Amino acid sequence: MSEIVELNVGGVHYTTTFETLLQEKSSLLHELFSSKNGLVKDSKGRYFLDRDGVLFRYILDFLRDKQLNLPEGFREKQRLQKEAEYYKLSGILDCIRGERESRPPGCITIGYRGSFQFGKDGLADVKFRKLSRILVCGRVAQCREVFGDTLNESRDPDHGGPDRYTSRFFLKHCFIEQAFDMLHEQGFRLAGSCGSGTAGSAAEPKPGVDAEENRWNHYNEFVFIRD
Amino acid sequence: MSEIVELNVGGVHYTTTFETLLQEKSSLLHELFSSKNGLVKDSKGRYFLDRDGVLFRYILDFLRDKQLNLPEGFREKQRLQKEAEYYKLSGILDCIRGERESRPPGCITIGYRGSFQFGKDGLADVKFRKLSRILVCGRVAQCREVFGDTLNESRDPDHGGPDRYTSRFFLKHCFIEQAFDMLHEQGFRLAGSCGSGTAGSAAEPKPGVDAEENRWNHYNEFVFIRD
Amino acid sequence: MSEIVELNVGGVHYTTTFETLLQEKSSLLHELFSSKNGLVKDSKGRYFLDRDGVLFRYILDFLRDKQLNLPEGFREKQRLQKEAEYYKLSGILDCIRGERESRPPGCITIGYRGSFQFGKDGLADVKFRKLSRILVCGRVAQCREVFGDTLNESRDPDHGGPDRYTSRFFLKHCFIEQAFDMLHEQGFRLAGSCGSGTAGSAAEPKPGVDAEENRWNHYNEFVFIRD
Amino acid sequence: MSEIVELNVGGVHYTTTFETLLQEKSSLLHELFSSKNGLVKDSKGRYFLDRDGVLFRYILDFLRDKQLNLPEGFREKQRLQKEAEYYKLSGILDCIRGERESRPPGCITIGYRGSFQFGKDGLADVKFRKLSRILVCGRVAQCREVFGDTLNESRDPDHGGPDRYTSRFFLKHCFIEQAFDMLHEQGFRLAGSCGSGTAGSAAEPKPGVDAEENRWNHYNEFVFIRD
Amino acid sequence: MSEIVELNVGGVHYTTTFETLLQEKSSLLHELFSSKNGLVKDSKGRYFLDRDGVLFRYILDFLRDKQLNLPEGFREKQRLQKEAEYYKLSGILDCIRGERESRPPGCITIGYRGSFQFGKDGLADVKFRKLSRILVCGRVAQCREVFGDTLNESRDPDHGGPDRYTSRFFLKHCFIEQAFDMLHEQGFRLAGSCGSGTAGSAAEPKPGVDAEENRWNHYNEFVFIRD
Repeated sequence: MSEIVELNVGGVHYTTTFETLLQEKSSLLHELFSSKNGLVKDSKGRYFLDRDGVLFRYILDFLRDKQLNLPEGFREKQRLQKEAEYYKLSGILDCIRGERESRPPGCITIGYRGSFQFGKDGLADVKFRKLSRILVCGRVAQCREVFGDTLNESRDPDHGGPDRYTSRFFLKHCFIEQAFDMLHEQGFRLAGSCGSGTAGSAAEPKPGVDAEENRWNHYNEFVFIRD
Repeated sequence: MSEIVELNVGGVHYTTTFETLLQEKSSLLHELFSSKNGLVKDSKGRYFLDRDGVLFRYILDFLRDKQLNLPEGFREKQRLQKEAEYYKLSGILDCIRGERESRPPGCITIGYRGSFQFGKDGLADVKFRKLSRILVCGRVAQCREVFGDTLNESRDPDHGGPDRYTSRFFLKHCFIEQAFDMLHEQGFRLAGSCGSGTAGSAAEPKPGVDAEENRWNHYNEFVFIRD
Repeated sequence: MSEIVELNVGGVHYTTTFETLLQEKSSLLHELFSSKNGLVKDSKGRYFLDRDGVLFRYILDFLRDKQLNLPEGFREKQRLQKEAEYYKLSGILDCIRGERESRPPGCITIGYRGSFQFGKDGLADVKFRKLSRILVCGRVAQCREVFGDTLNESRDPDHGGPDRYTSRFFLKHCFIEQAFDMLHEQGFRLAGSCGSGTAGSAAEPKPGVDAEENRWNHYNEFVFIRD
Repeated sequence: MSEIVELNVGGVHYTTTFETLLQEKSSLLHELFSSKNGLVKDSKGRYFLDRDGVLFRYILDFLRDKQLNLPEGFREKQRLQKEAEYYKLSGILDCIRGERESRPPGCITIGYRGSFQFGKDGLADVKFRKLSRILVCGRVAQCREVFGDTLNESRDPDHGGPDRYTSRFFLKHCFIEQAFDMLHEQGFRLAGSCGSGTAGSAAEPKPGVDAEENRWNHYNEFVFIRD
Repeated sequence: MSEIVELNVGGVHYTTTFETLLQEKSSLLHELFSSKNGLVKDSKGRYFLDRDGVLFRYILDFLRDKQLNLPEGFREKQRLQKEAEYYKLSGILDCIRGERESRPPGCITIGYRGSFQFGKDGLADVKFRKLSRILVCGRVAQCREVFGDTLNESRDPDHGGPDRYTSRFFLKHCFIEQAFDMLHEQGFRLAGSCGSGTAGSAAEPKPGVDAEENRWNHYNEFVFIRD
């Protein structure tokens, strides 16, 4: 079992082992604690680091588990990055950068033109929601990341780069709640929604179009944002 | 009364008893503190654990009460799970997993086609809200979990698995606020809502349909999400 | 002046007096600290309690002021209840229970059919909002709690129990902002809102109905939720 | 330079000077620390106060700067008030009360009837938003506090007290974003919004009314709440 | 390596070096710690400062890195400003002021008149969203800051100062999600949204206007606010 080390990081006291502090070969901590050159001790004999004491909790955690495991909604990511740079902990920097790249902030809009099923009179006493298509608008790469195989790209004429914005994607299924769930799983939250009905006209509905269904047409639009 | 133990968990100090630490037979804490082999003490004589000091609060709590009782909106569940794995506390892991399974994240949409009661002219000076049916859309299992006996599934033709999405459920009653309360009790929050009116037409209303009631028809849709 | 006591509650240190600890005759603290039987001390001579150290802050506060005074938005109520049960502090349990009973979670919907005043042409250049009635829907007891004397129940035909849901209450006044303020004061927050216009018709407006006012008719609905 | 004092407030340790503690002549702290009668010391020689240790941070801050300067979104105002009452610090009580009076909670609704400018065909390819008037509804005093000189009260017939609710105020300008900014500056947040279009009619538009502009008429309503 | 200093700031203990404390020539800390005149020590020999102990964390951080790096959503900015004034740290004051000036609070509204593409019957089975123009309303300077080169100002007749409000800006592209992303990147959040449809009319659609496209016309408006 490795020797216990008492640390004073900017006034906050931590206890750990030399083994933990030496985990990362290329880090400043390895450099300092392998030779012990340049290290000073406080009046109680604790090794002293002139850095923020609170964030060192996650530095130590990373050295113990080789994983960066931050609280949900952690609000000091930028500050932690600065500390990791100071300590030359490339593993932490990679994690923070990797997360930012794989889950970039952005916005996806989901819309549908809907109505209700009125068709067979007398029979269908409950009129259920009827969606035509679920439209997906946003950055191409982000739409693909969220919807994967359920995305239909066949009607998007510009086969350009993934940073392009499109409003010509739609889903292969008609379950809006499944689309919501997939967005939610990828860290998007519903930030706003609007609905609108349609205008009536003096003209007769086209043949084959149910007058009631026509009357209930509406467009609902849902804006999802990932921070 | 059991003997007092002073602990130094990564620099945070706890005081408890051996009795508490030995509660879980298969845990690492039982293994360590029953034999005391492999345990080291810090310079003040406290037993030392090279782990996160803050999360140990809930580990200790669990050992005292045999229950996992986390703060409302606790944001370090994933980190706590990691600690429980390290300490081999299957009781905590079961709680975290069990909660995730019984209350999975997801989305349920509630919609209604509504109008106002105009019928008896001269008499009813107040026109109250009139709902046709409360429609329920979402994953089958989740809709059942929330609405139980108040759910009418009779018009859903696909009697498939509970992971299927449906938009053909509705409620046996017409009190939208009761539906909201039931969703709220199960941890869903209202994330967005949209309303739309209907289109007018040049045609006369069908016999038996009140013109005013027709004119006020609208569809309101409410999206509930559980994180 | 009472004697000072140093406490070690699960590793967190508190200082108080015997007088404070003996305030509640039927509590475990009174039992322990009046006889001092069964109490142990830590290595620094502090009395030791093998319980959560953080929540003890509110336990002590209650003993000092005989009032439970928690932070706004306190997120450990369930955990505090557990501690109060352990310490047999019925005063705290009564407070937590009482608050839950007098302010149960729930949902109230406020709706209004509105338009604008167009009547006297040439004169009224500003067209103000015109509400017919403010409709109130929700659990009977909760509607009464919030709106008290301003609630008109005369058109609710089912004079049933207070747990019933109703959609036939309305307010005696027409100031929607006053309704919002009353809901807000009782801890409800606006969780969602939807608006819809009305459908036009080929028919002439009824005699006495202003065509413009008719055209601007809309229904706005506001969902308030208390957690 | 004044003498240093070490304090133990309910177990939390503070260091300050006698000069700071004696700042407020009529306070309990002045009474206690000028005579030192009735003061006791803990085992380390720190002066002991049997009160909440965490909130004392703001008590001390106030004594140093003669100002109450709380964190944004501070959630223990009620608890701090209780402490200030105990310490007889009328300056703090005045601040808390003053803030509550000058910024009472409440609700203001902003609405506008809008359309788009279509007039000069061929020329104006972009159709901009066209607002008629920005309507302001809420408690008279609160509307005045927020909108000051930009408020037009000329059409409000009831020149009653400031606690009255009105729906007959409007703004002297037509920039809805300016209204939003003024509400935001006074601590109101946008809690909900609804939109609705208008109904069509078989009748011809009145002379001078643009048919397109007529068709796009809508009413948008924004509810702002201050906690 | 510089000499270690132990500090007691209002009861919170920090450890740092003289080198760090002397970084800012014109600060009170430089004045105090270069001469050590007027400095007092507590009973443990730590240098004592009679100021808030918690906020000193960020003061020290700034001295170490010459950068102000606050947690995301930091809620004590006003309190930190007060401390920086006391310590005469103009670097921190400049940062706080600079941020407030470059990112002032405010409101921008984004609106669009939309419909769906119906044109080529038989071919286009999916009807995609069709936007006319994305309208931008708000303070001129703020709109420019957010949208930069993508903003079209050509139709704004008042070439006044940047503090003016305008509702005559629009974007050079038609991707609403790109507009949302740009607002989001600049710290605006979506605070509310409303939609409305259009009124029908008895008149025939103008030549060249698709009847279906006409019927689905709607106006959606999104309010973004930066705190």
